[in-house]
Amino acid sequence: MVRMMFREKLGRAIERNDSLLCVGLDSEMDKLPSCLPRTPDGVLEFNKRIIDSTKDLVCAYKPNSAFYEMLGAKGVRVLAETIRHVPREIPVILDAKRGDIGNTAKAYARAAFEVLKADAITASPYLGYDSLEPFLAYEDRAVFVLCRTSNRSAGDIQDLGGARKVYIEVAMKAVEWDARQNLGLVVGATYPEELAEVRGLVGEEMPLLIPGVSSQGGDMELAVRNGANSSGSNAIINSSRGIIFADGTERFAEAARAKALEARDAMNRFRKG
Amino acid sequence: MVRMMFREKLGRAIERNDSLLCVGLDSEMDKLPSCLPRTPDGVLEFNKRIIDSTKDLVCAYKPNSAFYEMLGAKGVRVLAETIRHVPREIPVILDAKRGDIGNTAKAYARAAFEVLKADAITASPYLGYDSLEPFLAYEDRAVFVLCRTSNRSAGDIQDLGGARKVYIEVAMKAVEWDARQNLGLVVGATYPEELAEVRGLVGEEMPLLIPGVSSQGGDMELAVRNGANSSGSNAIINSSRGIIFADGTERFAEAARAKALEARDAMNRFRKG
Repeated sequence: MVRMMFREKLGRAIERNDSLLCVGLDSEMDKLPSCLPRTPDGVLEFNKRIIDSTKDLVCAYKPNSAFYEMLGAKGVRVLAETIRHVPREIPVILDAKRGDIGNTAKAYARAAFEVLKADAITASPYLGYDSLEPFLAYEDRAVFVLCRTSNRSAGDIQDLGGARKVYIEVAMKAVEWDARQNLGLVVGATYPEELAEVRGLVGEEMPLLIPGVSSQGGDMELAVRNGANSSGSNAIINSSRGIIFADGTERFAEAARAKALEARDAMNRFRKG
Repeated sequence: MVRMMFREKLGRAIERNDSLLCVGLDSEMDKLPSCLPRTPDGVLEFNKRIIDSTKDLVCAYKPNSAFYEMLGAKGVRVLAETIRHVPREIPVILDAKRGDIGNTAKAYARAAFEVLKADAITASPYLGYDSLEPFLAYEDRAVFVLCRTSNRSAGDIQDLGGARKVYIEVAMKAVEWDARQNLGLVVGATYPEELAEVRGLVGEEMPLLIPGVSSQGGDMELAVRNGANSSGSNAIINSSRGIIFADGTERFAEAARAKALEARDAMNRFRKG
């Protein structure tokens, strides 16, 4: 079966659901609503209901590998089943921030793309091009390389540099490394100026994955205005806890839908194009 | 139960086995000797026999998470059982190169230290201090932060910088971040001059994890001379494929022992102290 290229799949999902919203499945077991068992099966049930209630409102889902790994082998099964539950027309970005030498990166790529069947993965640039190449070799998948992360200490390494800071160099190298048109960048909404700078450097076509709008306090208007391209597209704006854990009762899925709708519509008010 | 601090545990293992050798359990299923089934259970059996035949010759084991993740949920179980099989006096460094924002890093730390029960983990510095803090908070475990990696593209990001290159800044920050004496650095044997430089910067007490001596072509003499401290200690020199896949027949465990013995003794010829 020939798969659609990632950017086309993303573009269609953005258009079909009229949405730049990515729902982050940071489904920490200890935070499940009280109506669900705090077990790996409870996490899977939670994810399925969140997906069912938001799938017409999002451009992507982003499960965060850490919260599944924390559950051991069962968590990995829940992660695989969660990804399988997402409708095939919506891209799944596995947030795993992998980064290792070639031989090992190949094994991580197999784990993400063949075992878990994600459409895309997040990866660290620290080891350089040959650590990303095994992921990029999957032409119908995508790699979102960390550029400017959303956390407070982001600048410890990313602001180092001479004439150009490290995160700027990463953005420039990303353009160079994107021979197969399947590379994207991660830029936190908590750094809106850097976001505008990166969008300016990478042009119109490269998707930017933008975490940090809700719990982390990033400004949604600036995330859209500075992150999207001139057609108001190619920005994937992630919200996790603010949506999935909006309500702790048996009405959690409806509450998540309401929050997702609100976030989507708020973003759309700032989209050009 | 009070656990021993990582550095003490490592120091004792180095002394007891008179060894700086770390055996890397990069146990790729497709490379198992022909006498074992190419299944997750086969990988576990392989690891147990490698551990049994080398446990008096090493200062640490380093399972590489990627090769277990590649096997899905079963792989995670094999990884946990492999770690459990290592004698408790020998430290296990989980090579996972994790790196994420605080909240997520906490979940990765739980996965590595509480679920898998590793003594240490490798982590990326790209997100800065707050991404490492949740690992460092486990006082009796350790974090090996990537400084200068062994691969060819290492310099893409690590050589950026102004007056000081990025990997030098990472080494200097590591000293600053090491309030609990449980931080180490990863420096590839393929960059012996950088290794000497980093050892000079971090002083005597910080352990350096040094991959890249066999398959990747790093020089063993320089790895020991430039990586160990003035007592010939605190260097953990990893060899993976050159030892574990030394022989493809039912004699694989004896062959691995012979290679491990040879590597240990070769390293010891260059140790001072």
